[in-house]
Amino acid sequence: MEKFLEILKSKLGPKGYFEDPIVMAPYLADMRGRFFGDIPIITRPKTTEEVSQIIELCNEFDVTMIPQGGNTGLCAGATPININTRKVLISLSRMNKISPSKSGELYLEVEAGSTLKSVQMMADNMGLIFPLSLASEGSCQIGGNISTNAGGTHVLKYGTMRSLVLGLEVVLPNGQIWNGASSLLKNTAGYDLKQFFIGAEGTLGIVTSATLKLFPKPKGVATLLLGANDLQSLVNTYNTLKLELGEDITAFEVFPDNALNFVIKHIPDTRKPFDKATTWYGLVEIWGNDTDDQILEKILLPIEKLINSNQILSAIAASTISQREKFWKLRESLSEAQRIEGASIKNDISISPNLIGEFTEITSKEILAYMPEIRLTPFGHAGDGNLHFNLMQPKGMEQKEFLKHEQTLQNIVNIRVTEMRGSISAEHGIGRIKKEALIQHLDPIAYELMKTIKNAIDPKSLMNPGVLF
Amino acid sequence: MEKFLEILKSKLGPKGYFEDPIVMAPYLADMRGRFFGDIPIITRPKTTEEVSQIIELCNEFDVTMIPQGGNTGLCAGATPININTRKVLISLSRMNKISPSKSGELYLEVEAGSTLKSVQMMADNMGLIFPLSLASEGSCQIGGNISTNAGGTHVLKYGTMRSLVLGLEVVLPNGQIWNGASSLLKNTAGYDLKQFFIGAEGTLGIVTSATLKLFPKPKGVATLLLGANDLQSLVNTYNTLKLELGEDITAFEVFPDNALNFVIKHIPDTRKPFDKATTWYGLVEIWGNDTDDQILEKILLPIEKLINSNQILSAIAASTISQREKFWKLRESLSEAQRIEGASIKNDISISPNLIGEFTEITSKEILAYMPEIRLTPFGHAGDGNLHFNLMQPKGMEQKEFLKHEQTLQNIVNIRVTEMRGSISAEHGIGRIKKEALIQHLDPIAYELMKTIKNAIDPKSLMNPGVLF
Repeated sequence: MEKFLEILKSKLGPKGYFEDPIVMAPYLADMRGRFFGDIPIITRPKTTEEVSQIIELCNEFDVTMIPQGGNTGLCAGATPININTRKVLISLSRMNKISPSKSGELYLEVEAGSTLKSVQMMADNMGLIFPLSLASEGSCQIGGNISTNAGGTHVLKYGTMRSLVLGLEVVLPNGQIWNGASSLLKNTAGYDLKQFFIGAEGTLGIVTSATLKLFPKPKGVATLLLGANDLQSLVNTYNTLKLELGEDITAFEVFPDNALNFVIKHIPDTRKPFDKATTWYGLVEIWGNDTDDQILEKILLPIEKLINSNQILSAIAASTISQREKFWKLRESLSEAQRIEGASIKNDISISPNLIGEFTEITSKEILAYMPEIRLTPFGHAGDGNLHFNLMQPKGMEQKEFLKHEQTLQNIVNIRVTEMRGSISAEHGIGRIKKEALIQHLDPIAYELMKTIKNAIDPKSLMNPGVLF
Repeated sequence: MEKFLEILKSKLGPKGYFEDPIVMAPYLADMRGRFFGDIPIITRPKTTEEVSQIIELCNEFDVTMIPQGGNTGLCAGATPININTRKVLISLSRMNKISPSKSGELYLEVEAGSTLKSVQMMADNMGLIFPLSLASEGSCQIGGNISTNAGGTHVLKYGTMRSLVLGLEVVLPNGQIWNGASSLLKNTAGYDLKQFFIGAEGTLGIVTSATLKLFPKPKGVATLLLGANDLQSLVNTYNTLKLELGEDITAFEVFPDNALNFVIKHIPDTRKPFDKATTWYGLVEIWGNDTDDQILEKILLPIEKLINSNQILSAIAASTISQREKFWKLRESLSEAQRIEGASIKNDISISPNLIGEFTEITSKEILAYMPEIRLTPFGHAGDGNLHFNLMQPKGMEQKEFLKHEQTLQNIVNIRVTEMRGSISAEHGIGRIKKEALIQHLDPIAYELMKTIKNAIDPKSLMNPGVLF
């Protein structure tokens, strides 16, 4: 390892690595502060060639590699824990160049270390949008968004990150550079190799740059808050609105009143939107080629019908930008409010959208049977079947005591999800902390196939060990 | 082989195979009638289990397999040519069950042998659409659409087949059944295995069923024919309209006047749309959540501006369904009219959409320098950068003589495409006839990576030999 470090440092130069434990510390802790790894060195390549050199050297010395983007992942996929000492962390942060495109081009070439926010801003400067939008967009990086196939709040209209990637450049586990940069919208000349690396969580190579798809800005926006008696009514509401408005529905988020209570309690400048008692809230956003008013007009008739048929109890449309922001603040503060209130056990699951109501009802009963005082605060992206089925610490129970039940509680959720043909990870990936759950719940034939591909592309298992496998 | 055939036939029963050469003949000729293969037997499994049994038996006896859907491919990917005699064709035609979905569900479970048309019709019965649309939709099958990542005329709004597949069931080259049926819109639990099989042209396994994404019907449609002086003006027109109408532009097709001349000459009930001399035509279709009239109103102002700035010369909107059909007939008859007129050498290329004009200008000059009397008839899906850059037999040259130049002419096109970072196959795949061109023009690192994956999943090279590799 000494010889390896010596050559590595001489290749990268003083700007190309960190060794100081104090400087390295933030890179070694995961986003939620639950895990701390250790590492002899953090490399900070500036170019694809440097990434390739690092990988070649790691191959020569049998050193494993942990790629890291903005370090905002929730599954410790970029945290160097449970690995032996022959390892190096590769931070992509210095590779953050965004190449401006020409007029009329609906794409952008960006390096993997660019933050999502910087890409959104560049698109905005071009009069376009890059529609991926996540809570961590200020610091998460494109390479990480690609490697975890990030989702977020605009998936209904624009899809997950997979739909937004036109081309990739990847350094393979043997150090070879595959230059798949491409702005093509159609290509059937051989396997679509970029698909293999999207969502692979850095286990098949290191994404160094990407060609991303941009979109015209919507002409108008409508944002509505809905109130309902139960979750299934909101699912039915979504189905009705979907038939009216199709792909213009950009977001359909749901959260229960008890989750909103924590927001009102802990987050300044928030209040309940309806006077009427409401059990579930839906937040709908529509982006279209009409003015705000025209879009609103299109949605009002179906909303009226839904109220008359008692699917929904109340509805309010944002009439100003500030009101729209207030609506979103309720939704976006849910995680933070839960954090302040106490410990919570998080589940990021997805099932067929129509089954969300049934799933939530059954699973809630099972969870409550196990721990009657637990506080259920599921919320999420109902339109795409993705619920953050979070379970909060009962009042009066110690945090430590509560977290002892984490695995059992997650297992109750995951067994039900699997039975309903859902996924135990909708948008957060597997990383290091859900690996055992993946092995337990994934079809063994699928897992075997994953291993076959992993072994073929990374035969020495040097890329991000402990993640997925 | 005798022992193999004996066991195979006893397993499948009399309905499960063909041996009569007359019955087998249509399965052994490719769509364009240029290639005829030979095969000892055509198997016709009815279930996934039967497909698995066939594959297991082929493994035991080292027999290669050629999967076949509707046999409408243009690259002989399903035609058993240039393979030794130890081979069997697997026709999926009997596996054509479509399972009806429940109300509110925006997906459909279909077996691989279902024709595209039957899927479209089932969606229509549900009040929804399945948007993939191809010339051969009456006979092409879903399994083939998936294996070639089919494109067609609605890609701008709905994407290629890859975007329309939610889940897959695949029988792997070792006979194992991977059941990846899924209606999930978000899933990051491990590699997204379905992506590996989409567009793999049957070289990694046999797709037996799929979960397909459905969409609400558009509320209104507008169809316009545009006339312009050159191709680049139409590209610029598309860029302008795209900013106004975003993803509501479903199709933007282009064709030159000389290609239209063949349609007028050979296809009954067709006439030129404009009196004014026109060099290039654009066919725009918009599907939106407005009435036909409202959509038209939205497009008229930008069209007027484009006429005033001389980007386009003329524009006409379809005012009736029959007029809309007449517009599309001009576009859809291009291939047939060319076929009647004489031999043509086909190229199915894609480049970055903005470069279409430049590409066509440069490549046309190069082609004409080589064969001055050749008739250039490029047409295609300009919005997504996909041109069918077809080259027609010069008047007075024998067909046989002309076709001798096929490889040289295709090479001129492919060299230019590769230099402009385009693809030598936009939507037709590689099959058996473009394999050499793929090897010549694809980045060797990409091809090596393809081989690594192929060898890992199909180590005995039993699946569709001669295709891609």
